[in-house]
Amino acid sequence: MAKKAPVRVSLLGCGTVGSGVLRLLRENAEYLESRIGAPLEVRKVLVRDATKDRGPDCERAWVSTSADEVLGDPELDVVVEVMGGEEPAGTYLQRALESRRGVVTANKMLLALRGPQLVDTAVAAGVDLAFEASVGGGIPVIRTLREAFSSDWVERLEGIVNGTCNYMLTRSRREGLGFDEAVREAQRLGYAEAEPSLDVDGHDAAQKLVVLAMLAFGARVDPALVPTYGIRKVDARDHGFAERFGYVIKHLAIGRDHGERLELRVHPTLVPAGDVLANVSGVLNANQIHGKALGPCLLSGQGAGALPTAVSVVADLVDVARARREGAQGLSTRGIQLEDRPLQPLDEVRSRFYLRFNVADRPGVLAAIAGALGEHGVSIEQMVQEGREHDEGLPVEIVMLTHEASWGGVERAFAQIAARDFVARPSRFLPIEAQ
Amino acid sequence: MAKKAPVRVSLLGCGTVGSGVLRLLRENAEYLESRIGAPLEVRKVLVRDATKDRGPDCERAWVSTSADEVLGDPELDVVVEVMGGEEPAGTYLQRALESRRGVVTANKMLLALRGPQLVDTAVAAGVDLAFEASVGGGIPVIRTLREAFSSDWVERLEGIVNGTCNYMLTRSRREGLGFDEAVREAQRLGYAEAEPSLDVDGHDAAQKLVVLAMLAFGARVDPALVPTYGIRKVDARDHGFAERFGYVIKHLAIGRDHGERLELRVHPTLVPAGDVLANVSGVLNANQIHGKALGPCLLSGQGAGALPTAVSVVADLVDVARARREGAQGLSTRGIQLEDRPLQPLDEVRSRFYLRFNVADRPGVLAAIAGALGEHGVSIEQMVQEGREHDEGLPVEIVMLTHEASWGGVERAFAQIAARDFVARPSRFLPIEAQ
Repeated sequence: MAKKAPVRVSLLGCGTVGSGVLRLLRENAEYLESRIGAPLEVRKVLVRDATKDRGPDCERAWVSTSADEVLGDPELDVVVEVMGGEEPAGTYLQRALESRRGVVTANKMLLALRGPQLVDTAVAAGVDLAFEASVGGGIPVIRTLREAFSSDWVERLEGIVNGTCNYMLTRSRREGLGFDEAVREAQRLGYAEAEPSLDVDGHDAAQKLVVLAMLAFGARVDPALVPTYGIRKVDARDHGFAERFGYVIKHLAIGRDHGERLELRVHPTLVPAGDVLANVSGVLNANQIHGKALGPCLLSGQGAGALPTAVSVVADLVDVARARREGAQGLSTRGIQLEDRPLQPLDEVRSRFYLRFNVADRPGVLAAIAGALGEHGVSIEQMVQEGREHDEGLPVEIVMLTHEASWGGVERAFAQIAARDFVARPSRFLPIEAQ
Repeated sequence: MAKKAPVRVSLLGCGTVGSGVLRLLRENAEYLESRIGAPLEVRKVLVRDATKDRGPDCERAWVSTSADEVLGDPELDVVVEVMGGEEPAGTYLQRALESRRGVVTANKMLLALRGPQLVDTAVAAGVDLAFEASVGGGIPVIRTLREAFSSDWVERLEGIVNGTCNYMLTRSRREGLGFDEAVREAQRLGYAEAEPSLDVDGHDAAQKLVVLAMLAFGARVDPALVPTYGIRKVDARDHGFAERFGYVIKHLAIGRDHGERLELRVHPTLVPAGDVLANVSGVLNANQIHGKALGPCLLSGQGAGALPTAVSVVADLVDVARARREGAQGLSTRGIQLEDRPLQPLDEVRSRFYLRFNVADRPGVLAAIAGALGEHGVSIEQMVQEGREHDEGLPVEIVMLTHEASWGGVERAFAQIAARDFVARPSRFLPIEAQ
């Protein structure tokens, strides 16, 4: 085979993931060349601050602060975007695709907000757009949805897609840490940002769910429309009660294809303790995909981290570079047909539920709660009451598991109960995930 | 885009998997065409018995009993082999690759025995050889090893790769079924063959491990050299003791890269109960791959079954057909460099162990056992003794967990203990998998 011209690559951004990518490119240069059939050549690395040290794998001559210089390079084959955020990354990638460069990106926020538009641009230009690293860092879930499920129909998926939430819930369950304590520990270990809201309030998970739904269900969805709840209100007592009933609390991103409508939601959920998802602990992530023919397929691994993410970026780069050198570009997006899919209102979602009430210990309270639930079609399957052994007069905790009911029914019953004078502290509910 | 000429496909074999493939090709024809960029056209289906009904998806005109007719077809693009067994499948695929047809196969036995030769032939001919369905039916482990790990280094892997064993162990643990009972139940449900030895004695798992090791470690290994143990001797009492110590018994295929030497082995193993692998139950399979950079990555799903396997075959067919139509063949095998790797003798493998002795209940016995173990470098970490509460004079059961020791040390200590007159029933040991 004649020696092929190098595939010319530029990076947008050079933080920890970008440095990891450069390191892998240097360390594995020979192997990557054998996989691609041509060497990879780094042209430029776009950064905001040219004076900052980028580590030993980033050559001084690569560094540029000019997007025009980097993207205007007529020799450029592939753009690797590891800067994150919606802008200016979005404008850069749009421009790269329009000028027929292949694109590899790790940017889930951008994909959640503008994925369909970028896919359309890539399809129109006949080039590749690869984004394995955008969801689940080191877990090949995008690849699996694109390729392994290519002749199957994804019926539903559940994912533990945010490592910060999973870590905090794991610590809270095992060590009884409160939310504030758990978040401080996660921050100390580098698992949570100084401003943790994007993670702990579920927005990061909702963005990832939208990217997964694009591939799993061919859906164009605005992440702002996905019902999203975080983990602030889950406390050690909930973990204790869940365990007593044989469950573990996990923060899940859930998607189901109901034909015309799509059900997407992000929230803490009770998962049966023997379930594989229940045993994905700490910062690990997992995605369970249910194919009509393939059945359930679970992928689990490191959801974030510089090196796992860099490995996924480089794996994508190999595919895109190879296709470009072989003159077979645009295959990765071929067959992705996106359409606007209406979402099922959360109100109508049906599930079993875990309910927890903190109420005065006096006659008639249980009857009032059961009555309010019954009025809204929520029937009780199991119940425990706790706290009577303490001083009389103090509130008691009542925990119930329900039969299948509608989310809206539970909310309406809760609104009714909240108005009663026997309620000591706000009531809480969590759905139960059936397998 | 101009309409491309169809990609012409013939099947070798048309059992349940083959019928499933034909069904998926028909049901998803339009979608597959959009993915491939050209329609798929079935040319021939090679069968042994032309009179047998092949179901509604197999057209009468396709059926042929002549390998020469099927493989000699000058228009043929891709051969899909779903007949199984080493011969004549091996000769057919060798011939197909040499005459530059793309090949998709679900045949793990053939790959374990002749994979390296087939890969070499495919590389020399510059065509694709895809075999996702050969290991773990519906789990995209081959794809993940080939692509997602393309810039990483696989340090080790553990797999539950035989659904029959996993089902039987699960039933034995949960319901106390003995081996014979469990195997009869598995046969009744279609999870075990009439002659179950290939599964329950571990040979099927060893074949799959050799295929995985080919991709994970670039290793050419004879499956007959892989130390292989089945599940015949694991009984309900072992499950009980394992549980008491916080473990679950799983039949694992294990591979570790020690640099020059490779450690491969197949046997029942104690796995910590909280581990994800411990919670992969029933007929489900799982593969855990540990990348140097990627960390642990677990894939789990249906390991067998006609439809999951057919989905994997068709996913491979999409890749191979697409590459062929784009003139970009041979990429799938590019960069696979296989070499003969010496195996680490089982004797030298180090692990913690679970030991179980059935011995006379009299003074000095424990000292004799501990002495024999100590002589061979096996030290005890925990111990329980059971049976004293029964009639005096009956044998007691002594179970120990050891610190890390060599497999050979345990075997030599066991040989020494076996010769003693206090042994009532054969002693048993199982390694403990550390995470």
